[in-house]
Amino acid sequence: MASSSLLCFGLCLLVLFNACFAQIEQVTDITREGKQQRQRQQRFQTQCNIQNLNALEPRQKVESEAGVTEFWDQNNEQLQCANVAVFRQRIQQRGLLVPAYTNTPEIFYVVQGRGIHGVVFPGCAETFQDSQQQQSFQGSKSQDQHQKVRQLREGDVIALPAGAAHWIYNNGRDQLVLVALVDVGNSQNQLDQYFRKFYLGGNPQPQLQGFSQSQGGRSQGSQGSDDGRGGNLFRGFDERLLAEAFNVNPDLIRRLQRPQIQRGIIIRVEEELRVLSPQRDREQEQEECEETPSYERDNGFEETICTMKLRHNIDKPSHADVYNPRAGRVTTVNRFNLPILRDLQLSAEKGNLYPNALLAPQWNLNAHSIVYVTRGNGRMQIVAENGENVFDGQIREGQLIVVPQGFAVVKRAGNRGLEWISFKTNDVAMTSQLAGRASVLRGLPLDVIQNSFQVSRDEAQRLKYNRQELTVFTPGPRSQWGLTVA
Amino acid sequence: MASSSLLCFGLCLLVLFNACFAQIEQVTDITREGKQQRQRQQRFQTQCNIQNLNALEPRQKVESEAGVTEFWDQNNEQLQCANVAVFRQRIQQRGLLVPAYTNTPEIFYVVQGRGIHGVVFPGCAETFQDSQQQQSFQGSKSQDQHQKVRQLREGDVIALPAGAAHWIYNNGRDQLVLVALVDVGNSQNQLDQYFRKFYLGGNPQPQLQGFSQSQGGRSQGSQGSDDGRGGNLFRGFDERLLAEAFNVNPDLIRRLQRPQIQRGIIIRVEEELRVLSPQRDREQEQEECEETPSYERDNGFEETICTMKLRHNIDKPSHADVYNPRAGRVTTVNRFNLPILRDLQLSAEKGNLYPNALLAPQWNLNAHSIVYVTRGNGRMQIVAENGENVFDGQIREGQLIVVPQGFAVVKRAGNRGLEWISFKTNDVAMTSQLAGRASVLRGLPLDVIQNSFQVSRDEAQRLKYNRQELTVFTPGPRSQWGLTVA
Amino acid sequence: MASSSLLCFGLCLLVLFNACFAQIEQVTDITREGKQQRQRQQRFQTQCNIQNLNALEPRQKVESEAGVTEFWDQNNEQLQCANVAVFRQRIQQRGLLVPAYTNTPEIFYVVQGRGIHGVVFPGCAETFQDSQQQQSFQGSKSQDQHQKVRQLREGDVIALPAGAAHWIYNNGRDQLVLVALVDVGNSQNQLDQYFRKFYLGGNPQPQLQGFSQSQGGRSQGSQGSDDGRGGNLFRGFDERLLAEAFNVNPDLIRRLQRPQIQRGIIIRVEEELRVLSPQRDREQEQEECEETPSYERDNGFEETICTMKLRHNIDKPSHADVYNPRAGRVTTVNRFNLPILRDLQLSAEKGNLYPNALLAPQWNLNAHSIVYVTRGNGRMQIVAENGENVFDGQIREGQLIVVPQGFAVVKRAGNRGLEWISFKTNDVAMTSQLAGRASVLRGLPLDVIQNSFQVSRDEAQRLKYNRQELTVFTPGPRSQWGLTVA
Repeated sequence: MASSSLLCFGLCLLVLFNACFAQIEQVTDITREGKQQRQRQQRFQTQCNIQNLNALEPRQKVESEAGVTEFWDQNNEQLQCANVAVFRQRIQQRGLLVPAYTNTPEIFYVVQGRGIHGVVFPGCAETFQDSQQQQSFQGSKSQDQHQKVRQLREGDVIALPAGAAHWIYNNGRDQLVLVALVDVGNSQNQLDQYFRKFYLGGNPQPQLQGFSQSQGGRSQGSQGSDDGRGGNLFRGFDERLLAEAFNVNPDLIRRLQRPQIQRGIIIRVEEELRVLSPQRDREQEQEECEETPSYERDNGFEETICTMKLRHNIDKPSHADVYNPRAGRVTTVNRFNLPILRDLQLSAEKGNLYPNALLAPQWNLNAHSIVYVTRGNGRMQIVAENGENVFDGQIREGQLIVVPQGFAVVKRAGNRGLEWISFKTNDVAMTSQLAGRASVLRGLPLDVIQNSFQVSRDEAQRLKYNRQELTVFTPGPRSQWGLTVA
Repeated sequence: MASSSLLCFGLCLLVLFNACFAQIEQVTDITREGKQQRQRQQRFQTQCNIQNLNALEPRQKVESEAGVTEFWDQNNEQLQCANVAVFRQRIQQRGLLVPAYTNTPEIFYVVQGRGIHGVVFPGCAETFQDSQQQQSFQGSKSQDQHQKVRQLREGDVIALPAGAAHWIYNNGRDQLVLVALVDVGNSQNQLDQYFRKFYLGGNPQPQLQGFSQSQGGRSQGSQGSDDGRGGNLFRGFDERLLAEAFNVNPDLIRRLQRPQIQRGIIIRVEEELRVLSPQRDREQEQEECEETPSYERDNGFEETICTMKLRHNIDKPSHADVYNPRAGRVTTVNRFNLPILRDLQLSAEKGNLYPNALLAPQWNLNAHSIVYVTRGNGRMQIVAENGENVFDGQIREGQLIVVPQGFAVVKRAGNRGLEWISFKTNDVAMTSQLAGRASVLRGLPLDVIQNSFQVSRDEAQRLKYNRQELTVFTPGPRSQWGLTVA
Repeated sequence: MASSSLLCFGLCLLVLFNACFAQIEQVTDITREGKQQRQRQQRFQTQCNIQNLNALEPRQKVESEAGVTEFWDQNNEQLQCANVAVFRQRIQQRGLLVPAYTNTPEIFYVVQGRGIHGVVFPGCAETFQDSQQQQSFQGSKSQDQHQKVRQLREGDVIALPAGAAHWIYNNGRDQLVLVALVDVGNSQNQLDQYFRKFYLGGNPQPQLQGFSQSQGGRSQGSQGSDDGRGGNLFRGFDERLLAEAFNVNPDLIRRLQRPQIQRGIIIRVEEELRVLSPQRDREQEQEECEETPSYERDNGFEETICTMKLRHNIDKPSHADVYNPRAGRVTTVNRFNLPILRDLQLSAEKGNLYPNALLAPQWNLNAHSIVYVTRGNGRMQIVAENGENVFDGQIREGQLIVVPQGFAVVKRAGNRGLEWISFKTNDVAMTSQLAGRASVLRGLPLDVIQNSFQVSRDEAQRLKYNRQELTVFTPGPRSQWGLTVA
């Protein structure tokens, strides 16, 4: 017992070490796992002839019984370039988002609230079960067994492979708000450039099932599926066939096919939803210790998708990868601390900037960055390869902007600070900074800086060394750029 | 000797265990090999705006001296979506399909007959040789040495990497029938979306060399290449240059370039084709034991493409992954039992349904499924993301249909049973079933089913547990759907 | 000391062995590293409907202060098919190519001259430093520290990942000439099909920043960026913001944004450029021993991108993989001797043919080959899948031609010999030869050759065995094809 605690503690330390170590040394780690992870997978071809970027709001809003789904325009130039679709779910208290799956990987961030999340992986056992029911679950009507469920709370990032059915229930007291990215350009998507959502239940409107639906000239608002379009997956099958497959009465199948739900995919649960679930407190302890990154256990047969970690809290201050007590922090989740991201070729970054602080000007070497502002506001500038400014403006809570691969970007928090989640289209997204302790200028010989910019040796020294901070910069005394220009 | 037999037996058991275990637990195994296989490779971009699917027959027929090649229409919407091309070879007795290679991986299934198959990998040694000839093979005209050849028989699946030249000879008493899929969307294809076939010998008609040929407005039937179009690879070179390269007389080169064959790529061999080849009986024994999956021997230097297993018999009842004595069986070949599929990103499934039995309604999480009916007939329904039925009809021997990623499908055998081979565009294609012992509903809490479909707890229980079978279902007493509707 | 020398010697031998062994057995090695390298990554979709290939000269010439950049037409059909862009840099003595990065991997070959090359990887330490300055580098103006720099010389191949900033300085006595390939179709490029170059310094003309610039109807020659278009990356940011980020005076930022350089990206350095750098002699020794291929050290944490080998000399006779004292040699660099190529999915081949010698007719199984002639001239023939000759002509120093995947090609040196560098779009590009000791015909049974070409058994024997040489063939007595036809 003592030795296993010790082992657990050791693993915790190791994980923590890896997570914290990950950020600063992250970019040097690309080859650390060498043979395991050399792959850099291809994305679908895109058009990125971008002249202007904009801070985007959701364009379409689809209401369900107990919540709202808001979509960003998938045909927007920025999102087309990044080849992703983004939507936001607002789930009311006791709202259930019905089980559904997509043709792409999905990654989402819990902006606000608490909930329960269930993913059903085919072939995995029903590991959550009432101990009394083991032999007679069919007779005992009130008991149940099902696959693992997970608690959700603010700051969680959840990753899902293509095709895996999942559901979410709001068991908290506030609205549960999620912002989700589906990676249409991902190698797991073998269909075309449109995101498609297949609902197992509910009464989905056509707009909820894929953007091609609503954008093929059929965007008639949010009416139900009574007109014959839309509907859950069961609706397309012959009722007698399904009745035979399920070995139930065809009447029951008919009700599956057209549930008596007014509309939508977020259902109001009358009483509290009962699922088997360990308490959050206990589970939280386990989170760190049991779900160790896969490179620790790649050799064992016990590692299957069934027990794979899908969630990582990216908002805990103690998880910060870069921290400057006077300017803010940055936290990263990538394949090193959430190994399923290696399959999904995605990662994410959470940034918290204190009022007027700066994030170092930088570029993405190998990823697009899709930035969603979770709180506050600030100012961003984005520059293209020809030195042209393609975005220079304010961005505030609830807005989204894409920073394409290679483009340089700088962020500055407004008076109330700036918080964001960035989804990145690479499982080890790398950035290179223009200023600060880890800047590209530090790596250049002084003579190269002198000659490239025609400055004096002294000036080259100042460019290299005057900003000693890393990534997150305290506002300087020299200017109040964010305020002045705004 | 005894210990090596024991080892061999042990390996056999292990392989068998893996193969059998593979199906049920297959979907949970995605991460078992962890670091080795995390890749999920990208396919070319496709259009999958599918409103209707159809059961397809071959569209074009090209006759050779000793056989016929039949092509499905590569421009068909379904095949474009899956980004594959399919053709069928019917090789008469003593017919030789001349050596050729393609710009894509290829996987084929032996529907009927027996044959010999040779693949030439560049750089591999000529390991089949007559022992008497070692020192003087040039002087001894009747002796030979060449690369490994393999016996083919009904039920074999053979996988080939892009660019590898191969040939087939029918040494059986019946016609040898193969159905082949070339994976145009595969990452090994660096050319465009057209399949191209490069013939080393024979006198190929233009239609045989790539579908772009016949579809660029030049589909004039099956005339020979005398008109100047078409021809084998040697034809394009200067005869004197080749004569110098081969160090032979230019006259001989001219005959290579335009062989005295009436037409085509399947040549009638006058006497029996002589190749060095171990007997099938002996070879069959070896098959199981010597060609162990690569994860057993990934560490050794001895593993090269030269000795790699390319063939797996998927029709042996003893290889079944799912078996229900009252309903049928399903057998899978994927990277776990045929490791070269890991490179090719392909797999296959053989299904045998007894009369009126059902295959569980299911969807593909991460692959397209290209279904070819090898025997019997049946009924299929396929449903898109919006709950629309895109196929509902009969399918019979010799027909082909594509089930796109994510789309839900159910199969039911007709009165004479239904057998099919499904090629899948992923080396670990995963399916999720809607009904039965491994269904997605089993993984959901009762309360989620109750609320998603607005059914009672009792009804939710019935949906979860009434069908206890796995994958292959016995026909129910409730309906005779297949018969009634047909 | 003795034992470490011995170890070093052993490693050298191993590397050498691997390099030499690589060529002959290369194609059989595809699976040797098994689990590590099974990936074959997807490229962007291309159009390869090629009727004719041509030997190409650069199409656009952009002059800088101390050198010239020449671009091949990225819209050329051949280059579009291979999905690459190619350019040549001619850097005068004491010319500095300013730091820049691209959205794609890059591989370049030093055709002539000597130089210094620096790559800045984000997060890597400044490992080159003057030992006296460790504690007071800021005070001591004449001292410096920076990331690793590498010596360049004729015959070097250098590989660079997407997004990594690099610079080059000509410290030799002659012009430094590089031919570079940027792999637009590579999986590391997540933008569209256009190559983009982001300059950190200099005063780049728009044509230098991406071919879309010059080809969007704006090809006005090589004027400077004073017209408002073009410019380095700093130019797009607000000067006050950058001043704050760098903690320097806005005046200095303004000079970064618009350096007082007449024009261009190759700057004349007035005095010799001073960088910290070990002597070439010492470094050369280290090259072989310290930078062992990664499969030797994949297990250690010490392996990071910071210390990764980026350079391999492919022109040293002692590095030859195939050598025929009467005909010439072929040398290959791929993931086995330059492990970073595994990430980049690229490789290269250097060929040196003596006057009138032949390179075996062959095809690429899994790659395009982009051939640049570095010296001499010769004749090439290229044949498509339908047996049509798509190229038959002379090719000479400074010209480029693409051999698409699957297409068969033969080369013959002219009277002065022929030397070339071939860039290949696969990290283990495999070729299959039609004639010679490793030819595909050797792998075929005699009866298959006899029947496929309708030749006698004796003739089949001659086709198999008359040319005993491997890859590089001495000119035959039979013909003087190259001369006759030319």
